Amino acid sequence: MFKKKIFEKRKTVQQVEESTSFAPKFDSNELIPVITTDYKSGEALMQGYMNKEALQKTIELGEAVYYSRSRKTLWHKGKISGLIQTIKEIRIDDDQDCIWLRVNVRGGSSCHVGYRSCFYRIVPFGKKIKNKTKLVLKFTEKKKVFNPKDIYKDFQNPTKL
Amino acid sequence: MFKKKIFEKRKTVQQVEESTSFAPKFDSNELIPVITTDYKSGEALMQGYMNKEALQKTIELGEAVYYSRSRKTLWHKGKISGLIQTIKEIRIDDDQDCIWLRVNVRGGSSCHVGYRSCFYRIVPFGKKIKNKTKLVLKFTEKKKVFNPKDIYKDFQNPTKL
Repeated sequence: MFKKKIFEKRKTVQQVEESTSFAPKFDSNELIPVITTDYKSGEALMQGYMNKEALQKTIELGEAVYYSRSRKTLWHKGKISGLIQTIKEIRIDDDQDCIWLRVNVRGGSSCHVGYRSCFYRIVPFGKKIKNKTKLVLKFTEKKKVFNPKDIYKDFQNPTKL
Repeated sequence: MFKKKIFEKRKTVQQVEESTSFAPKFDSNELIPVITTDYKSGEALMQGYMNKEALQKTIELGEAVYYSRSRKTLWHKGKISGLIQTIKEIRIDDDQDCIWLRVNVRGGSSCHVGYRSCFYRIVPFGKKIKNKTKLVLKFTEKKKVFNPKDIYKDFQNPTKL
């Protein structure tokens, strides 16, 4: 495994914003948010979180490893479903408190509900809702890539109310 | 302003994941994370947060309104810098705890440091770091779109160590 110290201490705003020093910020829960997009289409696939260990493993492995807040454990995406996310590029933002992963997805789906992207519904806005009494989401994907029951079987649904 | 009730109660997993009901989940700080990408290029521009009021204003206005955690106030992006984000599409994810905004940016920049995207640095991974003793970030943008000093003047830098 990777033995070197990969995270540097955050010392100055200049270092964090303008240098080549890798000094990510983890929040009060020791997590950093992650945006994951499809490398080719640019489509947002999911948003997750990593702790230090997950980020280090992702960097070593070249496959996305998140931290599951519902299961409170490392989550090597695709280990159960086979839908591994192979990393093409990792980026970090200006204040180094968010990670952007650009990935290819084996099997073409990233969503536990069975759709390609987790973001399969559009929220109407502006003029489109002017004379409406209620917001109605619009589906962007007509067909699921897989049936979650086939893949996850008795695995608990991670969605919390 | 928009008087109708736009958020529905979260009742069942089926409603949240599989229906057209708009029932976003706000976290323990009353915030929902937001991914913002460029409508044309798909590039991730920034990651922010909205509270209920910010999300409602964004939907009404068709321009991105975030909640600034550092300033603890609504943040109509671009009001100071002129770099307004005009919304082309809003999406919500499977469990409705993350928003994806697809925007056009007036002025072509979204980052307070002056770059086009906040994600202007690449984190090396996998084979690329095999014989390296240290991770070194790589800049993707050579030139800033604007000089932050010209735009923000004495406005406090939002980056926290």
